[in-house]
Amino acid sequence: MTASQVTLSSLITIAQQTRLAALRLAVLATEERNAAIEAIAQALESAQDDILRANIADCEAAIADGIAKPLYKRLQLDEHKLRDAINGVRDVGKLVDPIGAVQVHREIDTGLILKRITCPLGVLGIIFEARPEAAIQIVSLAIKSGNGIILKCGKEAVGSCEAIVKAIKKGLSQTAVNSDAVELLTTREQTLELLKLDKYVDLIIPRGSNSFVRFVQENTRIPVLGHADGVCHLYVDFAADINKAIRIAVDAKTHYPAACNAIETMLVHADIAATFLPQVAKALQGLNVELRGCDRTCQFLPEITKATSIDWETEYSDLILAVKIVDNLEEAIIHINSHGSKHTDAIITENTDNATTFMSLVNAAGVYHNCSTRFADGFRYGFGAEVGISTQQMPPRGPVGLEGLVTYKYQMTGNGHIVADYTGEEPKLFTHRDLDY
Amino acid sequence: MTASQVTLSSLITIAQQTRLAALRLAVLATEERNAAIEAIAQALESAQDDILRANIADCEAAIADGIAKPLYKRLQLDEHKLRDAINGVRDVGKLVDPIGAVQVHREIDTGLILKRITCPLGVLGIIFEARPEAAIQIVSLAIKSGNGIILKCGKEAVGSCEAIVKAIKKGLSQTAVNSDAVELLTTREQTLELLKLDKYVDLIIPRGSNSFVRFVQENTRIPVLGHADGVCHLYVDFAADINKAIRIAVDAKTHYPAACNAIETMLVHADIAATFLPQVAKALQGLNVELRGCDRTCQFLPEITKATSIDWETEYSDLILAVKIVDNLEEAIIHINSHGSKHTDAIITENTDNATTFMSLVNAAGVYHNCSTRFADGFRYGFGAEVGISTQQMPPRGPVGLEGLVTYKYQMTGNGHIVADYTGEEPKLFTHRDLDY
Repeated sequence: MTASQVTLSSLITIAQQTRLAALRLAVLATEERNAAIEAIAQALESAQDDILRANIADCEAAIADGIAKPLYKRLQLDEHKLRDAINGVRDVGKLVDPIGAVQVHREIDTGLILKRITCPLGVLGIIFEARPEAAIQIVSLAIKSGNGIILKCGKEAVGSCEAIVKAIKKGLSQTAVNSDAVELLTTREQTLELLKLDKYVDLIIPRGSNSFVRFVQENTRIPVLGHADGVCHLYVDFAADINKAIRIAVDAKTHYPAACNAIETMLVHADIAATFLPQVAKALQGLNVELRGCDRTCQFLPEITKATSIDWETEYSDLILAVKIVDNLEEAIIHINSHGSKHTDAIITENTDNATTFMSLVNAAGVYHNCSTRFADGFRYGFGAEVGISTQQMPPRGPVGLEGLVTYKYQMTGNGHIVADYTGEEPKLFTHRDLDY
Repeated sequence: MTASQVTLSSLITIAQQTRLAALRLAVLATEERNAAIEAIAQALESAQDDILRANIADCEAAIADGIAKPLYKRLQLDEHKLRDAINGVRDVGKLVDPIGAVQVHREIDTGLILKRITCPLGVLGIIFEARPEAAIQIVSLAIKSGNGIILKCGKEAVGSCEAIVKAIKKGLSQTAVNSDAVELLTTREQTLELLKLDKYVDLIIPRGSNSFVRFVQENTRIPVLGHADGVCHLYVDFAADINKAIRIAVDAKTHYPAACNAIETMLVHADIAATFLPQVAKALQGLNVELRGCDRTCQFLPEITKATSIDWETEYSDLILAVKIVDNLEEAIIHINSHGSKHTDAIITENTDNATTFMSLVNAAGVYHNCSTRFADGFRYGFGAEVGISTQQMPPRGPVGLEGLVTYKYQMTGNGHIVADYTGEEPKLFTHRDLDY
C-alpha cells in the first residue's frame, strides 16, 4: 500500500464517520440543532485564550516564512474578530430553519399524498485559505442546515483552526449532535483526496483565488458551489443620468476592488461618451483608478493606456478599469454575454425600455438597473448568510444563502395504492389537488 | 485541419445560431411561444404523410440491418402514435408558463427593489435513441420553456427525425420563433462534439441505456439531467399489512419491469418472513418473476436461486427480484443507502413511527409509504410533463417537469443606489421587506 492509498483509506473512514453523524443530525429537531449552535458559541467563548494563543503562534510562524501582508491580515485573529465570529454563530441560530419546509403538498388521489420537503444535502466539503474565522461561520451554517462538514484550512491557519475545531467538537459533545459531524483536514494531499470522495461528500465549497476555484471545478465530480471569475460590467446608456452613472461607477470600482462584484469593464454608449468620459475619468483617476480604453475611448482620454483583447476578460481585483465605447444597447449586451462571467452586470439609463431589454437579454446571475453591482451579496439580499456566489447557469445561482446547503425529497404516503389501477381499460383518474402547506 | 476539427467548428456554428435564436425566443411573450407550439402541431399534421413514409423507410432499413425487436417497436411510428404525439404538443401549450415567475420580490431599501425571476436555461442538448416521437415532445417542452434545442437521434431514426424536424422548422417559420432554435444532429461523432460545447449548451438530457447515460455523465462538463441506474427497493416491515405488501410488490416488479421506477430488491423483516415470503413468492412466481434470495430467504424458499453480492446493485430491468431478510429497520435503511441508486424506495408498514424513520433516513429522491414505487413519474406527480428523473443529490431531484428546463436571475432596480452608503461610520440600514408577488 502506498502512502497515498493510506491517506485515501483513512480519509474515507473520516468521511464515513462524518456521513453517519450527518445522517443522525439530519433528523434532529430545529431546537436541537439551534441548541448545538449555542453550545458551539459558548465553547468558543470558553476556548478564547487557547484559540488566540494558537493564532499568535500561526502568525509568528507565517512571518518567519515571509507571508505576504494581505494574507497575514486575513490570518490574524484578535479578540474583536473572534467575538464578531461568535456573534455570527448566534445570528445563524436565529435564522429560519431551512430544512423540513414543504414545497409541494398534493393529493394524487384519495388517500395518496405527495409532499416535497427540504432536507440536508449530507456532507459538505469546505476548502478555505487563511481566515480562521471562516471555519466558525461555515460550521454554524452546516449544523443549522443539518449537514456534516469536512473542513480543509490553509497551511498557515492549521494551529488556529485546530483550536477552533477542538472547541466546536467539545461544545457539540454536550448536545444531540455527534461531534463526528465536524472534521478538519490540514494537508494539501488531503485536499486532493477529498475531491475524489464523490460517494461521501455532496457539495464542495472552495474559497480562495480564481485559479484555485477553477482547479477544484476541473478536478472533482462532486458539485461545486462558487465561481472562478467575477468580470462584472457597467453599461452607461445614452439615456443615462450622468451623476448617477459617475456615482455608481465610483462605488462599483473603488469601494472594494478585490470583491468579485466590483466592475472590471465599463461600456459607454457613443452618444454620451464625449460628455461622460471626461467626468467619470476625473472621478475615478482622483481615486487612483487606472483606466484602459478601446481606441475610441482613447480619443476622448488620450492620456490612458490602450486596452488589449485580454482586458475584456480580466478580473483585475484591483484599481484598474477597462473602458469601451459601444454604438448601441445590442452591442453592449453582446459584449457582456461574450466576455462576462455571468456574475452581475448593470445598466445606467433613464430609459425604461432599454433597462428591460438589458435585464432580459444579459445572461448573468444578477442584472441591475441604476444601482451598483456591489449589492450582489447574500447579506445585502437579506438571506441572513451567504455560503457562496454561483455563476453557473443552473440554480442555485447568484448569492446563495442557506438554501444552497439543502436539497429536497419527495415523500409519498398511500394505503396500498398501485399504478396498475391507473392504467389499462378503465383507469382510475388522478385528482392532482393541491393541499394547504 | 482534421476531419474532427471540421465537425467541431461546424457544430459550433450550429450551436451559436441556436443560441442566438434562443436569446430571442427567451424574451417572447407566453402567447407567442404558445402560438409557436400550435404552429408546430399543425405543421406536423400537414407533414403526416412525409413523416410516416420516412418512418417506413427507417423501419425497412432497420429490419435489413437485423434490428432487435424491442428497438424496432420503439422505432415504429404509426398514425396513432403520431396523433398522440401531436396531442401531447397541444397539451404542452396548455401548461402554465414556467418562465417569468417571480420567486423573490423584496425591497432592499426605499427605491431599491430585488426580484428573482425564472428564465430559460439557454440551449438544451437532447440525445435520444430510436423513438422518433421523443423529438416531438421534447421540442415542444423546449419552446414552452423558451430554450433553444439541439437534438441528436439514434442512427435508426434519422430519416423519421429529419422529416419531423423539417416540419417543425416549417411550422416555426410562420411564428415569432426563429427556426434556428431547433437543430438536429445525426452522427455519433456529433454526439461526442456536442458534449464538449459547454460554452454553448447549458443542459444535456440523455435518454438511453444506463451505460450510455453514465458515458455522457463522465464525458461532459455540461450539467446532465437524468440518471444511470434505478435500483429501487421495497422494504416489508414486521408491521406490514401482508395483502398490501403483496399487491404493491407485484405492481412494483411486474407492471413494467423495464421502467426505472420498478423495484429490483425486496427487503423483508425477519419477523414476518415465514408468513410473508411463501405468499409473495407464489404471487410473483405466478407472474414469471425469478426470485434470487439471500441465504436466510433461501431457507424459506429453497427452490430459488441464491443471490450474490452483484444482485444487490443490479437494475435487472426484467422479471427478476432479489430478496433479502433484515433483522430490523436500521439494517434495511443501511442496505438501501449503501446499495441503492437514490431513485425511489418504499416501506410497507402499519407502524407510523417506522414509516417516518424510513422516509427521513433513506437518502433517495422518492421515499414512499404503503404505495408502489411506480408512482415516481412526472405525469403521475401532476407536473403535466416529465423531462427526466434525476437521482443526483442537488436539486432538481426526482421526476423533473418543465421546472428543470428553467433557471432564474436576480433583477435589481435602484435609483442611483451605491453600497458605500450602507457601510462605514453612519451606515444606512436595509429594510429587507418582502413585497407582494
